[in-house]
Amino acid sequence: MKEEPPLGEHYLIELWDCDFSKLDNLSDIQKTMTQAALVAGGTIVDEKFHQFAPQGVSGVVVIAESHLSIHTWPELGYAAMDLFTCKLDMDIDSCIQLIQKHLCPGNIEIKRILRGMPRKRPMQLSGLNKVSA
Amino acid sequence: MKEEPPLGEHYLIELWDCDFSKLDNLSDIQKTMTQAALVAGGTIVDEKFHQFAPQGVSGVVVIAESHLSIHTWPELGYAAMDLFTCKLDMDIDSCIQLIQKHLCPGNIEIKRILRGMPRKRPMQLSGLNKVSA
Repeated sequence: MKEEPPLGEHYLIELWDCDFSKLDNLSDIQKTMTQAALVAGGTIVDEKFHQFAPQGVSGVVVIAESHLSIHTWPELGYAAMDLFTCKLDMDIDSCIQLIQKHLCPGNIEIKRILRGMPRKRPMQLSGLNKVSA
Repeated sequence: MKEEPPLGEHYLIELWDCDFSKLDNLSDIQKTMTQAALVAGGTIVDEKFHQFAPQGVSGVVVIAESHLSIHTWPELGYAAMDLFTCKLDMDIDSCIQLIQKHLCPGNIEIKRILRGMPRKRPMQLSGLNKVSA
């Protein structure tokens, strides 16, 4: 019997050893994130990006298939990026390649978390069921 | 020697067995999510919520400390909520309690993922380093 697919896939992407200037440039990051959404095959619904002081950018691209987000720590060369999609055949590789090309991380780590597993429902609620990963 | 803290904490929250009507009500969900951000101790920077047809709501609250997001599948009684924070002493319990009070899930599961671990940097990039969880 074929197992039912999850409702969503959530990619948690750790980008290290990026240049300060790349991680502190709101317009470039916004352009990169919207392009990343499009090359993945997403349909952009809306987007919000913010420049923080003294440095750092946060941004979210809401897509019909869920969202992409990024938070940057230019002073540490680090950015946390997320891609959450309910469309399971998005072109994740092209999306990641585009991010690599534009943000040029020296290191990248990607976790794939399945969201909404129909055949693996959590147990009945009795207080909070916290699971650390 | 004390271990350095992560740069962020990311809570992935699976809400099951919610009422269709609660998960398809944009204004109530938006109110709940903004309240959740505030009780957690977040500073709201911006927010974006969308109603999808024939059903479903997606929304993001950008906070100075990172973001909260939600995507709902009313027809399945499921919602995927996220809270990503770079402030490590946010009141997560109050945030979750508020979500439970308003969305009344029959089941809830929470994963806590550490983001930006300074002492656990990924290995040098040689192709993509995909880690499934």
